[in-house]
Amino acid sequence: MKEYKIVFEPSGRSGLVSNGITVLDAAKQLGVGLESVCGGLGTCGKCLVQIEEGFFSKHNLHSSFEHLTAMTPAEATVMQRLGLSNSHRLACEARIMGEVLVTIPEASRPQKQVIRKNVTSTIMPVDPVIELYHIKLAPPQLGDRSEQERVLTTLQEVGLGGVKFAYPALLSLAKILRQGNWEITVTVWDKSLILRVQPGFCQQPLGLAVDIGSTTLAAYLCDLEAGAIVATASAMNPQVTYGDDIMSRISYVSEQPAGLARLHQVVIDAINDLAVQATAQVSRSVEDIVDIVLVGNSVMHHLLLNLDPSPLGVIPFTPTVGQAIDCFANDLGLRLNPGARAYVLPLEAGFVGADNVAVLLAESPHRQDAVTLIIDVGTNGEIVLGNTSRLLCTSAATGPALEGAQITHGMRAAPGAIERVRIDPQTLAVRFKVIGQDLWSDELDAWDIEARGICGSGILEAVAEMFTAGILESNGRFNKHLSSPRLVQRGRSRAFVIADATQSITGKPIIISQSDVRAIQLAKSAVYVGAKFLMQEFGVKSVDRIVLAGAFGSVLDAQRVMNIGMIPDCDLVNVHSVGNAAGKGACIALLNKAKRQESSELALWVEHINTSSKDEFQDEFVAALAMPHAVDPFPHVVLKQKGDK
Amino acid sequence: MKEYKIVFEPSGRSGLVSNGITVLDAAKQLGVGLESVCGGLGTCGKCLVQIEEGFFSKHNLHSSFEHLTAMTPAEATVMQRLGLSNSHRLACEARIMGEVLVTIPEASRPQKQVIRKNVTSTIMPVDPVIELYHIKLAPPQLGDRSEQERVLTTLQEVGLGGVKFAYPALLSLAKILRQGNWEITVTVWDKSLILRVQPGFCQQPLGLAVDIGSTTLAAYLCDLEAGAIVATASAMNPQVTYGDDIMSRISYVSEQPAGLARLHQVVIDAINDLAVQATAQVSRSVEDIVDIVLVGNSVMHHLLLNLDPSPLGVIPFTPTVGQAIDCFANDLGLRLNPGARAYVLPLEAGFVGADNVAVLLAESPHRQDAVTLIIDVGTNGEIVLGNTSRLLCTSAATGPALEGAQITHGMRAAPGAIERVRIDPQTLAVRFKVIGQDLWSDELDAWDIEARGICGSGILEAVAEMFTAGILESNGRFNKHLSSPRLVQRGRSRAFVIADATQSITGKPIIISQSDVRAIQLAKSAVYVGAKFLMQEFGVKSVDRIVLAGAFGSVLDAQRVMNIGMIPDCDLVNVHSVGNAAGKGACIALLNKAKRQESSELALWVEHINTSSKDEFQDEFVAALAMPHAVDPFPHVVLKQKGDK
Repeated sequence: MKEYKIVFEPSGRSGLVSNGITVLDAAKQLGVGLESVCGGLGTCGKCLVQIEEGFFSKHNLHSSFEHLTAMTPAEATVMQRLGLSNSHRLACEARIMGEVLVTIPEASRPQKQVIRKNVTSTIMPVDPVIELYHIKLAPPQLGDRSEQERVLTTLQEVGLGGVKFAYPALLSLAKILRQGNWEITVTVWDKSLILRVQPGFCQQPLGLAVDIGSTTLAAYLCDLEAGAIVATASAMNPQVTYGDDIMSRISYVSEQPAGLARLHQVVIDAINDLAVQATAQVSRSVEDIVDIVLVGNSVMHHLLLNLDPSPLGVIPFTPTVGQAIDCFANDLGLRLNPGARAYVLPLEAGFVGADNVAVLLAESPHRQDAVTLIIDVGTNGEIVLGNTSRLLCTSAATGPALEGAQITHGMRAAPGAIERVRIDPQTLAVRFKVIGQDLWSDELDAWDIEARGICGSGILEAVAEMFTAGILESNGRFNKHLSSPRLVQRGRSRAFVIADATQSITGKPIIISQSDVRAIQLAKSAVYVGAKFLMQEFGVKSVDRIVLAGAFGSVLDAQRVMNIGMIPDCDLVNVHSVGNAAGKGACIALLNKAKRQESSELALWVEHINTSSKDEFQDEFVAALAMPHAVDPFPHVVLKQKGDK
Repeated sequence: MKEYKIVFEPSGRSGLVSNGITVLDAAKQLGVGLESVCGGLGTCGKCLVQIEEGFFSKHNLHSSFEHLTAMTPAEATVMQRLGLSNSHRLACEARIMGEVLVTIPEASRPQKQVIRKNVTSTIMPVDPVIELYHIKLAPPQLGDRSEQERVLTTLQEVGLGGVKFAYPALLSLAKILRQGNWEITVTVWDKSLILRVQPGFCQQPLGLAVDIGSTTLAAYLCDLEAGAIVATASAMNPQVTYGDDIMSRISYVSEQPAGLARLHQVVIDAINDLAVQATAQVSRSVEDIVDIVLVGNSVMHHLLLNLDPSPLGVIPFTPTVGQAIDCFANDLGLRLNPGARAYVLPLEAGFVGADNVAVLLAESPHRQDAVTLIIDVGTNGEIVLGNTSRLLCTSAATGPALEGAQITHGMRAAPGAIERVRIDPQTLAVRFKVIGQDLWSDELDAWDIEARGICGSGILEAVAEMFTAGILESNGRFNKHLSSPRLVQRGRSRAFVIADATQSITGKPIIISQSDVRAIQLAKSAVYVGAKFLMQEFGVKSVDRIVLAGAFGSVLDAQRVMNIGMIPDCDLVNVHSVGNAAGKGACIALLNKAKRQESSELALWVEHINTSSKDEFQDEFVAALAMPHAVDPFPHVVLKQKGDK
């Protein structure tokens, strides 16, 4: 029986399903929550899904639409009743005939999504580039000059001279002055440009900070007056459909004539969707967003700006644009307030992009004497090492495994995802914790657990625990001498059962396969070698402090990360998990204009080390694939001693 | 037999034609040139015309498409062969069933159009806001910063620090650097913003100056380095379809839900077309236009900017926007270079708009001690009076007659239009001159004349001559006691034949009717009364100098303008006809950045006099309808004496 890949958004859960089964059955098999009241009769319309446009991969130029059976009469009746377009289907009627990308709308989901790409909060001075001014004019009289000039004169009287209107703000000026009976609130950018005019007295201008990861997009909606994050939203980066990592996206752009336009457009559309979702959470509108700060690695940055990323993929790897971009959001195709500004942080160098500049803003290693190692792990890992004297950076091709992609039962950090794992070394009994539940699996009845898959932190902990328990050997292979009901055969390799069939919503066990372990090894080795080369370059044999950042960072267990050898040894009290530092840095740039200037200085100051071009890279990488403490994790360095600086 | 109005673009020739006749026959009847090789058999495709979208008037909400018979099989065959859309028809096949607006494409015209809305040339300092810089970079090397930063660093080395890229200029940077082998030409605006990057060494950046008249659009393509006008193009303002004058366009916007969007879009589309036409004349592309200056009266200005003009139509007549607008051309929907800037001159007050600011730039009355009266006659007339001490302005509702519209055989100043007229007072014999021919009608064989209609200057001269010859009485009525073969009956009134049937391309005489005379009387009276009130306000009984500007101004005969009483008496040597001063002023602002600042100061300095709200306006207006020298043209003022200041 032929099998096809199906991907469910927004969870990011994917897998192979048999030809001809319904989308609803595929969802059940993969543990994706989908409402169904009529039991698959095609009448209730609760299992409504949206079929995504676009093409699955560059090798498969059929759209998702063409990979489903035609609409049945029952389905057509429901669609007509709901007044929906062709992009919607009933999951119980549409049958799979090829690769399909499906989004489950909020209304069809059994539970709301939890945002895991979150940021830790910090106290920081709020001094945004956006300010509101509330002014009253006299009604116009014969001989008065234009409304535009009357507003500017009044602003001058309150101390704001030399300000101008952005063109979009003029379009509704006449109407809004009359709506507000000549009492208005003016949104001013950088004390120089009027972006928006609202009737009456208004407060709480909104800004959006967006971290564009290769795999995950995270958006933070901020109240620009209070300096608070008021809503968050995340989604899979839709560019994933066109290539899993940055190199494959560069290839896509090089090979497809409209590739750049497509990759640009899908990410812009996704950011627009996130803006709608985030504002809806606080009953506001995207019209209320007047400023947006965007960060991403160099390739994400170029695609965001509709710039060909190809030069980044070949020697001498020169980016086309490196400095910060300060323009109207509309220039990029973003649909926020028509006058909204956009600020894209500068790049560092190579693949170390604006996201890492944001990490530096968030963590400020350059303000500390302690030598800090910052590891921001996503599909493109970015590593920084340094202190007040010098900052070094490099990138690491970690792959998407640590974001739950390309893993047998991987999924994004969403409800139902296994995020923590503990294995008893004696009995090999497994306890785990699922996102959306407060209790661990051994504190719940099996049928209440409803695990759907495993996310990045869950995979990492599972591999670390499997290694400690002796299930894995130091080379990452399954220990052949061990026997347990949890060790099962998958094809030609063994696999380990994390959640058994009773604990899983699909009725099938959730496992970690040999290839899953291999993906984690490749990721951790890339990070480890990158960190090691930076330490050599900096001339230290240990670091004072390690900061773990990334999409899974908030629940990352430092001990286990160290156990699998992803980071150099360091006193555990000095290893901090900070969540999505890039997103936090974007928020900082959104809320404090001086930090924008600082980010440009940082981008120029940090030194980029091209670790992967070093002669010894390959040998070191292979050596680092092994789990530590079996081989010496730092053969050339002495572990940090008490009292060392 | 029912008759319908048909308007032909680009000549602007219009008239009533019988129900059911073909568009080709209608063109012949109205003297509009249209190719036809096959003699109306529907096979040659030479008589191809374009049917304009949109609605003819607010009372008639059928589109032009619906007012033509359906496509015949013969026509459909030709259309398929030519690969054309539905907006095209064969004039020999399509029959008229209602009001229709038709554009005759260049290929279907027997001769090219002459631009009559021209400007006189003046010596002025060229110091445009646009400059080109030619730079060479070294090819990028490993570790180099971005191309953006390398370009900025090189510009800094040639003395241009602090400059930034406009976002659109970044999009093609990588490609252009490689095309030029790292040798490029950079277009810089105001020493601060990079608008464009071109490969290699480039010259002659282009700018466009556009005068948006209520009836006529005129565009002047300028070489921004040489300061020369290199091409001109003009068209009827397509907003004419929605209302002949500014008040009817305000009504259209107020009454139609999408009225503003429509009036905005049609004028933007027309300007885009003019840009294409003008650049094609010099084998350049609209991509080469990097700056555009736009002027128009207050209503045209608001519609250009997509601003509701309604507040301009009701007390206290406050414009929404008055200051100059400095934005990207793309913000307004203009399709020039993607980084092109747009500058819209400021308004004065009331209906006296940015076009009059341009007139002030062109004529500089504020730099002269002599008291100058400037009359810029279009469909909305604008009048300025003053000198170094004070400048007054007002507007006059002249109507479109002086631009050849709403006149029995009126047309725009285009080939075939009668532009000059002389009548022998004894014999009533008529001599006239047609645009496109060097000789007068009496120097040509009748069948070589091929007059198509009469343009603004021709109508004005005809009425002045008819008055001098005694054909018209001082009240504007036809002299009942006169008899001549040239005096014919038209309905209940008489009319005077300017071109007889043999001299006309239609085989029918071209006449001036009683209603044509009335339209000229209303126009000249409005101008005269406006000028008179300004003179009263300024405290002068005569002026030192009169400047006549407008769409017909270049061939206007001062003596005859004075004879019909449109302007106060003045020594003829001090009456100057300057052509389209508004267009000239727009060119000045395009070519000299200091003049932009000066225009803003002028707009604030000039005093607006609301003449039409004066109590005595109606009486004065009625009195001024009469032709002068029969009634005293200036009953309250003493005519200027030699030696008066």
